[in-house]
Amino acid sequence: MSLINESHDPALKSWVEQANQPGSDFPIQNLPFGRYRSIGADEDFKIGVAIGDQILDLQGTGLIDSPDMNALMALDSTTRLTLRRDISRGLAQGSPQQQAWSKLLSAQDAVEMAVPCRIGDYTDFYTGIHHATSVGKLFRPDQPLMPNYKWVPIGYHGRSSSIRVSGQKFRRPQGQTKAPDAAQPSFGPSRRLDYELELGYFVGRGNELGQPVSIKDADDHLFGVTLLNDWSARDIQAWEYQPLGPFLSKNFASTISPWVVTTEALAPFRAPLKRPEGDPQPLPYLDGDFNRKSGIFDVMLEVLILTQRMAEAGLAPERLTLGDAGAAAYWTAAQLLTHHTVNGCNLQSGDLLGSGTLSGPAANEAGSLLELTEGGKRPVQLANGEQRTFLEDGDTLILRGWCERPGVVRIGFGEVRGTVLA
Amino acid sequence: MSLINESHDPALKSWVEQANQPGSDFPIQNLPFGRYRSIGADEDFKIGVAIGDQILDLQGTGLIDSPDMNALMALDSTTRLTLRRDISRGLAQGSPQQQAWSKLLSAQDAVEMAVPCRIGDYTDFYTGIHHATSVGKLFRPDQPLMPNYKWVPIGYHGRSSSIRVSGQKFRRPQGQTKAPDAAQPSFGPSRRLDYELELGYFVGRGNELGQPVSIKDADDHLFGVTLLNDWSARDIQAWEYQPLGPFLSKNFASTISPWVVTTEALAPFRAPLKRPEGDPQPLPYLDGDFNRKSGIFDVMLEVLILTQRMAEAGLAPERLTLGDAGAAAYWTAAQLLTHHTVNGCNLQSGDLLGSGTLSGPAANEAGSLLELTEGGKRPVQLANGEQRTFLEDGDTLILRGWCERPGVVRIGFGEVRGTVLA
Repeated sequence: MSLINESHDPALKSWVEQANQPGSDFPIQNLPFGRYRSIGADEDFKIGVAIGDQILDLQGTGLIDSPDMNALMALDSTTRLTLRRDISRGLAQGSPQQQAWSKLLSAQDAVEMAVPCRIGDYTDFYTGIHHATSVGKLFRPDQPLMPNYKWVPIGYHGRSSSIRVSGQKFRRPQGQTKAPDAAQPSFGPSRRLDYELELGYFVGRGNELGQPVSIKDADDHLFGVTLLNDWSARDIQAWEYQPLGPFLSKNFASTISPWVVTTEALAPFRAPLKRPEGDPQPLPYLDGDFNRKSGIFDVMLEVLILTQRMAEAGLAPERLTLGDAGAAAYWTAAQLLTHHTVNGCNLQSGDLLGSGTLSGPAANEAGSLLELTEGGKRPVQLANGEQRTFLEDGDTLILRGWCERPGVVRIGFGEVRGTVLA
Repeated sequence: MSLINESHDPALKSWVEQANQPGSDFPIQNLPFGRYRSIGADEDFKIGVAIGDQILDLQGTGLIDSPDMNALMALDSTTRLTLRRDISRGLAQGSPQQQAWSKLLSAQDAVEMAVPCRIGDYTDFYTGIHHATSVGKLFRPDQPLMPNYKWVPIGYHGRSSSIRVSGQKFRRPQGQTKAPDAAQPSFGPSRRLDYELELGYFVGRGNELGQPVSIKDADDHLFGVTLLNDWSARDIQAWEYQPLGPFLSKNFASTISPWVVTTEALAPFRAPLKRPEGDPQPLPYLDGDFNRKSGIFDVMLEVLILTQRMAEAGLAPERLTLGDAGAAAYWTAAQLLTHHTVNGCNLQSGDLLGSGTLSGPAANEAGSLLELTEGGKRPVQLANGEQRTFLEDGDTLILRGWCERPGVVRIGFGEVRGTVLA
């Protein structure tokens, strides 16, 4: 049995009992990486592996010798696979490591998490074709998709300094906006604050400046996947974005989930990339057989909202969206990575590539309020009587993701949570 | 006499004799910072101060206690001014430090320089209004300047990983381009490779996420200025840039000069920012009295080209452009910094803000070939008989900058040099 199959064997159980509960995000088949420390402790963050409701101190096991996640991400794929095998065997029922490793566990609710690694550069793409079409319609009814969309994996550089881990609370951004009928712009808090449901792809091994990564090697340079909320101020964006793209409308905050689910863990959950009939074949440098082994990451994604009134009334978060992210991506992560480097641009371990908003084809699968409300025209009705066109102060957004497929143990991403302050 | 005036006293001479030569870029009135080590040495880069044709090992003087330039940049303005005074006094004729410090000097031609600091995030702006107008005309003859241009300091995020120091050689980027009359795009080397003449502003003290920097405090957060060549592939840009802005057309290489000329050194060389009559007053958060003390950095900028044939024939580089950058900027560096943070975005010490291409109002003051050749239509004629519409393989571009004003000692930026490989 190959190492990757061994680590996904449905019969595999952990001696950490909670990991074996159906529906756990972190069974032994997952083993995502994150950085953590005891809440409020005056200590450096350590690398941990999620198992059930616990975290394993990875350096404590002796399997790695440094707390530098970027160094871990830079490992070659064979070494990574061996590391995954060793963690899996150590956490499996009957493991001789059980006694020693059980002392290396912390409860997840007793720790604080950090951004998983040092993110040198962050690039956001635009692979969600349903999102691009819906949003394009609002700005350009006659030409929702630009002529380049089906040829170029559209992307732009984002801001890495303002990326924070789940739990981020941020002030509503201020900025310039201009109403269509106003003679001049005005200044004030954004009135069209929105979320964007994305996957974040972390770069593993980097490439040297001037050395593109070919499409057949690209998957090897991907380390893993997180959830990403790319908060967006639509009114600021509409006024600032021409001709050089979004800037202050995006860089005030971006929130990611604390756990990086590795490409090894995601191996059974890939799906063929299907281009609609009649769409152009990608240029050769982006072309390949994106089948079940090398296709899109087929992740289910869900967005929930918890307004301040709901929280005060003790209500549970309410779902805004549930969709199949895989079906929404027009380009694979490997295509994004190859495109990014084709001009010689160097990627570094720990760099983050955003998928762009992953909206499904149906209206209720939209990954942003801009789409759910048709540009703010049709408010979303919540069960407690509240309405939302865009986000209000005190709103908490929760993104969740998971993969499931018959015959394979379900794995989860955990969640990313963020709150808008006044 | 104030500390800043003392350090600019024209009577001040250094015991490093070459620094006192008229026309030296690095008289004792300048004192820019850079990072260096002996050529080919297996050692960490050190912080140095340029003086004449020498570099002073700053940590060796005991005035700083770490080789971390970002930490130096984060110092508050009073501490920075004290540091400048102490360096100036130590290098001045008659200084008691002369004997000890003379052992800390290295010849500039015996060292290699690094990018001056760790650049977390790089943002490029678009403050050159003549550039924006000329380029806008090529894309949109009926509307060269977008309606937002005179209200919003237009900017976008760039790529920090591919920023290198003067001397960078890079391969001509490949990518997708589409001829206007072609049915579909094709892939290959860029045929419209260009340079962009910019100033780079380094952030000194940063700000916390969610805490904007007011316009009156912004100058205090600026550390210094370099020269920046923002290489651009115009044909890749034209096809990729809609709707999210430039991406692969810019991120294959950006080259900066090794010396950061501090805002203290530039204090005598600021000029009032003048908006043309009839232009809108900036919104209050960007408004102020941008007078001689807080105005633009009035830097003379020059671009030279050295083609491979010229180099082989032993010819000197030939000037393409000479202009007054100050007159070209529509926004001050302080306005860029305040705008960047107004939504709460956090800047970190060492972050780089590009000015955008600084073209003067006259045709021969243009800061890019795109402008000099009117979009590639009118080749530039070189003295050796060669012509250029865009850059050819083997071309070396040299950017130089300096400040001069009656009654003040001239200071220079050194140069930034970069070469296009096949």
